[in-house]
Amino acid sequence: MLDNYNLTMLTDFYEITMANGYFHSDVRDYEACFDMFFRRVPDQGGYAIMAGLEQVIEYLKNLHFTEEDIEYLRSKGIFSEEFLDYLRDFKFTCDVWAVPEGTPIFPHEPIITVTGPLIQAQFVETFILLTINHQSLVATKASRVVRAAQGRPVMEFGSRRAQGASGAIYGARAAYIGGCAGTACAIADRDYGVAALGTMAHSWVQTFDSEYEAFKEYARIYPDNAVLLIDTYNVLKSGLPNAIKVFKEMKPAKMGVRIDSGDISYLTKKTREILDANGLEDCAIVVSNSLDEWLIRDIILEGAKVNSFGVGERLITAKSEPVFGGVYKLAAIERNGVMIPKMKISENVEKITNPGFKKVYRFFDNETGKVMGDLIALHDEEAPTRDGVEIFDPNAIWKRKRLTNFTVKELMVKVFDKGECVYESPDLESIRSYCMEQIETLWSEMLRFENPQTYYVDLSKKLWNMKHELLSKYNELPADK
Amino acid sequence: MLDNYNLTMLTDFYEITMANGYFHSDVRDYEACFDMFFRRVPDQGGYAIMAGLEQVIEYLKNLHFTEEDIEYLRSKGIFSEEFLDYLRDFKFTCDVWAVPEGTPIFPHEPIITVTGPLIQAQFVETFILLTINHQSLVATKASRVVRAAQGRPVMEFGSRRAQGASGAIYGARAAYIGGCAGTACAIADRDYGVAALGTMAHSWVQTFDSEYEAFKEYARIYPDNAVLLIDTYNVLKSGLPNAIKVFKEMKPAKMGVRIDSGDISYLTKKTREILDANGLEDCAIVVSNSLDEWLIRDIILEGAKVNSFGVGERLITAKSEPVFGGVYKLAAIERNGVMIPKMKISENVEKITNPGFKKVYRFFDNETGKVMGDLIALHDEEAPTRDGVEIFDPNAIWKRKRLTNFTVKELMVKVFDKGECVYESPDLESIRSYCMEQIETLWSEMLRFENPQTYYVDLSKKLWNMKHELLSKYNELPADK
Repeated sequence: MLDNYNLTMLTDFYEITMANGYFHSDVRDYEACFDMFFRRVPDQGGYAIMAGLEQVIEYLKNLHFTEEDIEYLRSKGIFSEEFLDYLRDFKFTCDVWAVPEGTPIFPHEPIITVTGPLIQAQFVETFILLTINHQSLVATKASRVVRAAQGRPVMEFGSRRAQGASGAIYGARAAYIGGCAGTACAIADRDYGVAALGTMAHSWVQTFDSEYEAFKEYARIYPDNAVLLIDTYNVLKSGLPNAIKVFKEMKPAKMGVRIDSGDISYLTKKTREILDANGLEDCAIVVSNSLDEWLIRDIILEGAKVNSFGVGERLITAKSEPVFGGVYKLAAIERNGVMIPKMKISENVEKITNPGFKKVYRFFDNETGKVMGDLIALHDEEAPTRDGVEIFDPNAIWKRKRLTNFTVKELMVKVFDKGECVYESPDLESIRSYCMEQIETLWSEMLRFENPQTYYVDLSKKLWNMKHELLSKYNELPADK
Repeated sequence: MLDNYNLTMLTDFYEITMANGYFHSDVRDYEACFDMFFRRVPDQGGYAIMAGLEQVIEYLKNLHFTEEDIEYLRSKGIFSEEFLDYLRDFKFTCDVWAVPEGTPIFPHEPIITVTGPLIQAQFVETFILLTINHQSLVATKASRVVRAAQGRPVMEFGSRRAQGASGAIYGARAAYIGGCAGTACAIADRDYGVAALGTMAHSWVQTFDSEYEAFKEYARIYPDNAVLLIDTYNVLKSGLPNAIKVFKEMKPAKMGVRIDSGDISYLTKKTREILDANGLEDCAIVVSNSLDEWLIRDIILEGAKVNSFGVGERLITAKSEPVFGGVYKLAAIERNGVMIPKMKISENVEKITNPGFKKVYRFFDNETGKVMGDLIALHDEEAPTRDGVEIFDPNAIWKRKRLTNFTVKELMVKVFDKGECVYESPDLESIRSYCMEQIETLWSEMLRFENPQTYYVDLSKKLWNMKHELLSKYNELPADK
């Protein structure tokens, strides 16, 4: 599996120059706290879906530098031999907290927090970002597409347009977490249990002397489930009549037709009519061809008759917005047992970070089961009690809301304790079911594709005060202090 | 390396259902000819860049089914034991032609052609598409970004936003082919020789008690080349003054400042002014922050003072259009030594394919060295002689042009001969230089970002006639022939 390839060096080079730099400076033994969070939901959606944690865990478990890595680094001529020796014995000993896969997540809240020796906690940045950004991107997109399909199964069909092998494989995994029913990617089935299926390409139809013969051969060889691709020549004039003839002659146990071009809405309505008129009410109609959540929504509104969707490039690359902009920022430095909160100031206000070692609470309404809001608090703050808690919008602090009668849940779980993995990853089916359940807890107003309601992610009073004290302090900072 | 992971099963499941189907039907021993081609240049550009061939070659060399693969396939319950035995002994014995990496390529012309036993030639579809689509996408995007920078080096900085590990690694490779000067991705350097570099993140600056101290430590540890990130707190009030102080005290051999937020145009002009006023004319200014070809073009037009660019997510994912839509289509079936041309008809006229076993010629003007046009011909047509050739637009056949005084080059080279690799892959530096040379042969009108001139890709008369005969034939095809 790709997991077994040592990806320690899949890192931005600056992680290594910084590691060597820290190694040779007084800060070497500091402990640090880093957060991964993101700033916007892609496609201006109302929520994102966390995915990729299992691959991060595999990476952290395997993290080590081989002699080949060290030889390569030596060849760069800028790293000391003491540092290279340190890398040879490198062992990951940090604590890691993370939001479980399949959980709806929101901007600005930590989704992974790493605390531990500065060099280590810094080094893991690139791989954590790469992996969580990629899989959360695809899981989030899949969740939208699946929602648009209103219960009809959506298959992930995009391997050939994925951005590289891991884009295809882990993309299929992430799409499954987000609610897809399966994939076309065989290796994602073999290695990750994402059910794969597939039937025929246009080339199958073209290979035989006639379309009829091609269909008949397929139904002969696969009598249990014959899904015939009917658009190689002409759907209504050729593909469908040939398919119907074959279904009647061969009587496959399950049957379907797939349409991959033309106007899906018109063609599926016509196809359904003709199939039914021939007594083939059981024949499923599968469609593909540059679909996404908007097209699927619209053709269903138009009355298209579709039993399942195959979605390719627009899902596997999240084409409409192919970047999940997660970042990994220093939140605190510990010196002599004291956590010193740190934050990045920026010209761009939305790039200002939340300082300190933090945790996140999510409140669920006991009556409706729906989410009420998330609260980012400092790690040593106690859980709000069921008696009530007041939350407020960090950017408009006069907007306050008192929550009562809730169940509160801590969002992040401990994944590594001093470098030891203490988390048992759920299997993929469980992650997928959990994701579906959690989406049920969201308000329906958060599910709109356009301009959804913004979910509340508030700061505890203690955290808000700390942040604003730091902001004032930095504003007074003389240039050459 | 990722190459060593057996990716045979990185395939659409339908390649396997078709393979099993062919195996159990009369067409089993047919020979087939498939073409990979694409229909549109991403971002409506004037040309694309071929990339990824080396990874396709590695894949084809390693193509085999392991016992694990066979066990997995058996578990699906739809494949015969005879077929699984066939897979156990599977050996790739096809011929493959391909356009070398770094070559400018255009819509509708074959860029890879595979001929050989039907099952094999079909099976390799998914991986060929995935790999060439991904790397050509990024190389094409890189070529645009590098062009916008007008000679200033462009570094690929996008690993953390790449779509998975191979997205990052092969994306860095492809970006280098397209003209980038290097990458931030260390493993792409170690394994593929894409020069990696990097300096510090904001966390470096935040870790120390002051920005000044952070810069000074960096310059102490890296006296040969100190590039300081000056936007953690405030570029002009804090970062730049601290950097200047450190440069004057520490006198690094090479020095630079990096700006990663704010208005790049304004900040670099101011920064250049202040650096120069301090006698630091040699200090380079490096910028990053959501750049792409349009932004780079515009800030250069505005007079931004930039020595080099770091380009991240918008390059590594080709964000503005993250899909290179290459397809792999059956072009002919050989039976008893006779090639029977095949084509896919479609409601969408641009989806109609070019039939037959083909080759592509490119004409270069002997006076200017510039390209004159490409000609798709049948594989057994002789090379046009220098006496002259008439080409015509296949969609507007009255548009004719007589070419004389040209040098003609066959675009595709033979890569596999009956399954044996007969091609020696150039090293990455050579591919990159070749790409730059070839871009020089394009007309300047093809290089515009918006609405560039469309390059001529014409069909030989023989091929055009064959295609139109087939089209007429299919139009007469009765539904249930």
